[in-house]
Amino acid sequence: MSKGRVEAFSDGVFAVAATLLIFNVQLDKTAPGGLFAALLAAWPKYAAYVASFLTIGVMWMNHHGLFERLSRIDRALQFINLLLLMAIVFLPFSTAQLGSNIGVPSDANTAAGLYALNALVIAFGFSAVWIYALTHPRLLSPDVDRQAALRTWPRFAVGTVVYLACIPLGQLSPIAVVIVCAALAVYYVFERLPDITHQPAAGARR
Amino acid sequence: MSKGRVEAFSDGVFAVAATLLIFNVQLDKTAPGGLFAALLAAWPKYAAYVASFLTIGVMWMNHHGLFERLSRIDRALQFINLLLLMAIVFLPFSTAQLGSNIGVPSDANTAAGLYALNALVIAFGFSAVWIYALTHPRLLSPDVDRQAALRTWPRFAVGTVVYLACIPLGQLSPIAVVIVCAALAVYYVFERLPDITHQPAAGARR
Amino acid sequence: MSKGRVEAFSDGVFAVAATLLIFNVQLDKTAPGGLFAALLAAWPKYAAYVASFLTIGVMWMNHHGLFERLSRIDRALQFINLLLLMAIVFLPFSTAQLGSNIGVPSDANTAAGLYALNALVIAFGFSAVWIYALTHPRLLSPDVDRQAALRTWPRFAVGTVVYLACIPLGQLSPIAVVIVCAALAVYYVFERLPDITHQPAAGARR
Amino acid sequence: MSKGRVEAFSDGVFAVAATLLIFNVQLDKTAPGGLFAALLAAWPKYAAYVASFLTIGVMWMNHHGLFERLSRIDRALQFINLLLLMAIVFLPFSTAQLGSNIGVPSDANTAAGLYALNALVIAFGFSAVWIYALTHPRLLSPDVDRQAALRTWPRFAVGTVVYLACIPLGQLSPIAVVIVCAALAVYYVFERLPDITHQPAAGARR
Repeated sequence: MSKGRVEAFSDGVFAVAATLLIFNVQLDKTAPGGLFAALLAAWPKYAAYVASFLTIGVMWMNHHGLFERLSRIDRALQFINLLLLMAIVFLPFSTAQLGSNIGVPSDANTAAGLYALNALVIAFGFSAVWIYALTHPRLLSPDVDRQAALRTWPRFAVGTVVYLACIPLGQLSPIAVVIVCAALAVYYVFERLPDITHQPAAGARR
Repeated sequence: MSKGRVEAFSDGVFAVAATLLIFNVQLDKTAPGGLFAALLAAWPKYAAYVASFLTIGVMWMNHHGLFERLSRIDRALQFINLLLLMAIVFLPFSTAQLGSNIGVPSDANTAAGLYALNALVIAFGFSAVWIYALTHPRLLSPDVDRQAALRTWPRFAVGTVVYLACIPLGQLSPIAVVIVCAALAVYYVFERLPDITHQPAAGARR
Repeated sequence: MSKGRVEAFSDGVFAVAATLLIFNVQLDKTAPGGLFAALLAAWPKYAAYVASFLTIGVMWMNHHGLFERLSRIDRALQFINLLLLMAIVFLPFSTAQLGSNIGVPSDANTAAGLYALNALVIAFGFSAVWIYALTHPRLLSPDVDRQAALRTWPRFAVGTVVYLACIPLGQLSPIAVVIVCAALAVYYVFERLPDITHQPAAGARR
Repeated sequence: MSKGRVEAFSDGVFAVAATLLIFNVQLDKTAPGGLFAALLAAWPKYAAYVASFLTIGVMWMNHHGLFERLSRIDRALQFINLLLLMAIVFLPFSTAQLGSNIGVPSDANTAAGLYALNALVIAFGFSAVWIYALTHPRLLSPDVDRQAALRTWPRFAVGTVVYLACIPLGQLSPIAVVIVCAALAVYYVFERLPDITHQPAAGARR
């Protein structure tokens, strides 16, 4: 199957999943005159919306960064990509639980843990795509330097570690999980997959 | 109409249908402190989500496998494709019934039967597209060997038989239907439409 | 703006609108054991789903038929297209009313009238796109014969007349509106926009 | 990342957000025979739907107008675009509040203010994309004349001013906000981003 098709389908899933997040922003019915207070009281839903929209958006950016380094896609890689998308589409559900429960003291920890777990599974999915590609060099774009790619692994894996740390963090401060996830998304905007193409001269960077 | 357009529209429908499945994963309102138990109790919804997401995802992969073997698309084939998409978009509804009722002993059989019936109709839709294309050779890509395609029919039809068998299976064990449908999706990842291009030498396979 | 962009946006709207129709197929909560009866009782929702999915699908086919005859798109035509899409996206709402009320004798006529009115507005939208293009020949593809296009007008307008007739028909038999709309969609699969390209010899048809 | 990808993702988000607006058009349950009256009483939801669909549609047109003037997209611009899309996807929520509350005297002002605020944030997002591009000339298409672009700024900013004025206007007449937003969308159809390409002769306009 052509790479373009897999990307188009993935793009569609990312775009729809991001847009569906707005359905989690809903107000409880209020008495007449209560709209303003209800809008203010819904702040955890806006916070969860912002964190998840940024997360899905930046994951989409990195998904493309990954696929740009591939020249071919086989059936197994398509299946791994499908599992990754399945975890991403789950994020609106986790976001809904976070937005609804972060103000409920006895449930906020559970909701934050679910959210961090979901993000962790997505990070594993990205790693699986990348590991599979690195171990099947015929799928890689010819200008990717496998050795450089392997050396840059630690920086790429930072998301996995942060999301893992968010699971216990959720037990201490659920709102911190929201902030860390939004911040990690912003971090990933600028700390992208390092340049791993063959370099004409050592240390040269595009 | 160009083939690319039909594929783009179909891709959009597949991507949206797969993403909408997450709306079937919802929790009943719980008392404060009940979130963790509610998350665990919702396991049938996760199982139905996974089975249906994999099913739609793999059907999308096979839809492309089919359309890659076509060089032209006429109005009748577009209409058959539309009927196929109509059955695929129905799957979120069947999935919702499955997720909601698999824990209700008196309704689980009905829900599993509906789900298997929906999958069967989709399998018939794929067969209809394929039969129409094989009987209208001018639509086929020039490198498709019609005789080889006809001989490989039995392997292609395995989904139809399995989904048909799932209808009575749903009366015995509804959860088995979910497992079989998820397993069939995984099976189809690797058992794809056989190679049916003209071969330079007998037995040679790409 | 490039024609490809307008088509891509329109395709997205058509695909999402068609897929969202499944949300109108929902069951009322039933007592345990009542699922099978509830599934049967929901037949008007399936009928409305089928009629609307076919209608949107075939409208998408004809939308492309129209745009294939254009070579350029100006701002006014984009705006007319936006109004057309706005009417198409309204169809899931009309479908929901039809599916919910066709079994309610005192409301079925109203719901059928709303549905036919929505379809009529869409037909007017298609006519507006076409009339605008015919009166702005620089937008037309060079191989379109304007005189032939004008002569074939009556056949193109059949949808408008049928949908108009459906408004009073809805007062007599609401279910007939569903059947007529589904039948009209099937009719339009095969009775497409006539060939209006310049012909090398009189009467020759592709 | 290629510009085409960013546009495709943005197109998907615009198309889904516009289509989801129809979910805000819903009727309260009525007694049998009450459908016609309920349809008439829902007019604020239709008005909000029309205003928001036109707004998103025209914003999509202008988004393309902007991106056509870019030749490259860097990570920061992608992030600004993501923030812009996040504000656009919020519009269905603001629209829902407007449609539900415009007939509730004590809440209509709040809902209109929220709607105008949302539109204002979107206008700021567009300005941010444009300012970033103008201050990073290597991202601009080579045929864009920066000086001309800077001179035309006042016309481009009219939306920001109008949406800003809508916030106090919402306190006086909430329905006027709906009318102004719809009118502004229509205005922007024809008053597009001015021609800012290098001109062979002074004053010549395409």
